[in-house]
Amino acid sequence: MSNNLFDFGMIGLGVMGRNLLLNMADHGFSVIGFDKDAVKNAALESAATPGTTVKGVPELAQMVQLLQPPRKIMMLVPAGKPVDDVIDSLLPLVEKDDIIIDGGNSHYTDTLRRVQYLGEKGIHFMGMGVSGGEQGARSGPSIMPGGDQTAYKNVKPMLEAIAAKVDGTPCVAYLGRSGAGHYVKMVHNGIEYAIMQLISETYSILKHAGLSNQQLHEVFKSWNEGKLQSFLVEITADIFLQKDDQSAADLVDVISDKAGSKGTGKWTSQDSMELPVAVPVIDTAVAMRTLSGYKDERVKASQLYAENNTEVPAATEEFIQQVHDALYFATILSYAQGLAMLFQASKYLSMDIPMPEVVSVWRGGCIIRSSLLETFAKAYREEAELSNILLNQEVAALVKSVEENTRSLVAFAAKSGIPAAGLMSSLSYFDAFRTESMPTNLIQAQRDYFGAHTYQRIDVPGIFHTEWGPQ
Amino acid sequence: MSNNLFDFGMIGLGVMGRNLLLNMADHGFSVIGFDKDAVKNAALESAATPGTTVKGVPELAQMVQLLQPPRKIMMLVPAGKPVDDVIDSLLPLVEKDDIIIDGGNSHYTDTLRRVQYLGEKGIHFMGMGVSGGEQGARSGPSIMPGGDQTAYKNVKPMLEAIAAKVDGTPCVAYLGRSGAGHYVKMVHNGIEYAIMQLISETYSILKHAGLSNQQLHEVFKSWNEGKLQSFLVEITADIFLQKDDQSAADLVDVISDKAGSKGTGKWTSQDSMELPVAVPVIDTAVAMRTLSGYKDERVKASQLYAENNTEVPAATEEFIQQVHDALYFATILSYAQGLAMLFQASKYLSMDIPMPEVVSVWRGGCIIRSSLLETFAKAYREEAELSNILLNQEVAALVKSVEENTRSLVAFAAKSGIPAAGLMSSLSYFDAFRTESMPTNLIQAQRDYFGAHTYQRIDVPGIFHTEWGPQ
Repeated sequence: MSNNLFDFGMIGLGVMGRNLLLNMADHGFSVIGFDKDAVKNAALESAATPGTTVKGVPELAQMVQLLQPPRKIMMLVPAGKPVDDVIDSLLPLVEKDDIIIDGGNSHYTDTLRRVQYLGEKGIHFMGMGVSGGEQGARSGPSIMPGGDQTAYKNVKPMLEAIAAKVDGTPCVAYLGRSGAGHYVKMVHNGIEYAIMQLISETYSILKHAGLSNQQLHEVFKSWNEGKLQSFLVEITADIFLQKDDQSAADLVDVISDKAGSKGTGKWTSQDSMELPVAVPVIDTAVAMRTLSGYKDERVKASQLYAENNTEVPAATEEFIQQVHDALYFATILSYAQGLAMLFQASKYLSMDIPMPEVVSVWRGGCIIRSSLLETFAKAYREEAELSNILLNQEVAALVKSVEENTRSLVAFAAKSGIPAAGLMSSLSYFDAFRTESMPTNLIQAQRDYFGAHTYQRIDVPGIFHTEWGPQ
Repeated sequence: MSNNLFDFGMIGLGVMGRNLLLNMADHGFSVIGFDKDAVKNAALESAATPGTTVKGVPELAQMVQLLQPPRKIMMLVPAGKPVDDVIDSLLPLVEKDDIIIDGGNSHYTDTLRRVQYLGEKGIHFMGMGVSGGEQGARSGPSIMPGGDQTAYKNVKPMLEAIAAKVDGTPCVAYLGRSGAGHYVKMVHNGIEYAIMQLISETYSILKHAGLSNQQLHEVFKSWNEGKLQSFLVEITADIFLQKDDQSAADLVDVISDKAGSKGTGKWTSQDSMELPVAVPVIDTAVAMRTLSGYKDERVKASQLYAENNTEVPAATEEFIQQVHDALYFATILSYAQGLAMLFQASKYLSMDIPMPEVVSVWRGGCIIRSSLLETFAKAYREEAELSNILLNQEVAALVKSVEENTRSLVAFAAKSGIPAAGLMSSLSYFDAFRTESMPTNLIQAQRDYFGAHTYQRIDVPGIFHTEWGPQ
């Protein structure tokens, strides 16, 4: 710490901001945080590892003055207006060449606007996704920066120090031009929504088939030791054992089914339609979270539409394997859709997103880390311009190995009336994706029939219109 | 035609604008159209029914001067900047109390902005959806106006004269405050996307089961004579008989499967997520149109994933009935999702959309007209505040009557590998909707585990957080 000036500043000392600073301090950086809340400043300092340099201050100007130029300042505040407010407060305090990093979940179009705005004033603004939750922030998150190369080079040593490591490689890389960091993080979260939805469906199916929470724990634990190894399956196994501290129940059984969301899944779906790229499993996950909030209607509907009486047989080993395989299938499909979206965004939004680096960064620290990402990393190493991972031979072999069981399970869900929107959506996308000729020729005929919207032909180029009518 | 001034003016004499004007003229109104293209002006005049008053002019100012104040001017131009350009050209020419109607497919937020902008200048601006294609425009469309009540009263007689009639009732009504007309039309189009997708899936399934185009014609024709009676099923029956004029083929077989779109389906999905309301069948339809454009990838995938070898048995009467019932089921679900979206939009966007009037207006003239709308109209007459038509007893009886066959067909599609994304999505939505307790409690547990996002409980109110971990 030269001149008593700090290496890095943080605005917003919620649990994520605090943990990231503590992580930096543990790696030898001197860090300072600003929060108006004195309690949070105290909490930061008292949580510091002895011997590290960590300070919390209640004035923004004080923090900025105590930073070594060019200053490196990160903010972790809610997306939207709060980010602009912080920028406005910072502007009179910072100088040319200082670096401001938005580590929250901002929409990438806001990031593009801010890069432009601050760039005109000589300030480097970088949008950066951070995934890993509170634990990840403390012990090693997955970090997704994009934008200004100069700014990135300046903070790279610190980011590499604090990031999760996989086989010694830090889970951070330069992920493309302005806005790319937040774009990649948004799609990461979209995939996260999809996988969480899929896990909830397999939970529901196994529960209908008679598994207790203890048995569910064992099933998910064993899955996490096999090819479904992933952070989300791992914590799911834990969840089934967690006891309620207010009753004798298992905690999962007393939690309300109204699911919340912070909006990044929604953005992924909405933005996919702008490109456009089809990400129906993510769309479905967003829709199901929404539907979960319509509790009153669902209660009424459950009375009106008595649940189907098809008996669900008790789960056999074979059945549990089917459920496993369907989850594996649909998980691959979720990554495929999200990664296809990044591939197209890179092209159409000129973001130059390096796909091999994206999956490499996701291998550790983040919420969607899973052993599958090694396979995807290999696929992109073989072909960096792979437009959809389903077109890779090795991925195809994995998909085909579980295809039949997936079909059986989806058919079972349809017959038994257990909701399986995400699993069904992944199968129907797959079947459409592998179809050379979709039946959308009929849609083109209809559009031309009623709206003269014209159509193309399969045999000759050009745009055609027919005067349709009863024959 | 008093003072030689015209009753109504139209900007944009494409086929829709021309046909609407001719329709008005046939009902005794004197009409004038403006288009820079002299050919279009001539085409308008020469198509007029003898004895009607129809004029086309090449100068906007000329048209405005020839209109009876308060002027009633409609534009039918592409959504977006063209609408603003027309407004800017009109502003120096119109006077206080004149009425400008946007009859195109503008996004409702643009309409809200324009209502405000023109309102400040004393000009009434009305967003109005028009559905029915070219034929509907000429002989009777479904008309969805919203906004300014004064403006609506002024044009009501004309709109009622030109609208489609069902049992003598014109298919036009005041559908709510500013922006409501375009909002209702947007959702109309979203439902249209969904039903077209569903029909294309049933076409594909029946084709796989060996039906020729002639047989497909007969099946859809008979469906149109039963409870699936609707415009889209009717024209589908016609389509299978249409011959290609360039070859010996049936036209549908030489049309490319790359489906186009004008964006209203996309808007419906995107805006549903803002409210939020779940409309997964519409989302799926949008995704499948998008996927249809990825032809090169699909061709590659079709080679990599040889289509499933499950033999599809030749269609029996019973099988065709299953397909029919699944289409009926999924069509009801598509309306249910779209109407639920309008119900929530009415509330959250303060649009005061009268649901009974919406379904009444859709009974005739528009693309999604079908005999089902009578049933829905009855449901809303019984309960105008019905949040979802699936909660109506009579609708429930219709759904339940086809539920088992729908399950069988979806299971068949899953097993046989024929893509049926829309049908599957409608069934999985239904099964989630009728579930009192969704498995999203697990999602809340996961969110609290990794992100401290908190959860609610089923037994006591409040917001809770648990320090989760391996037990």
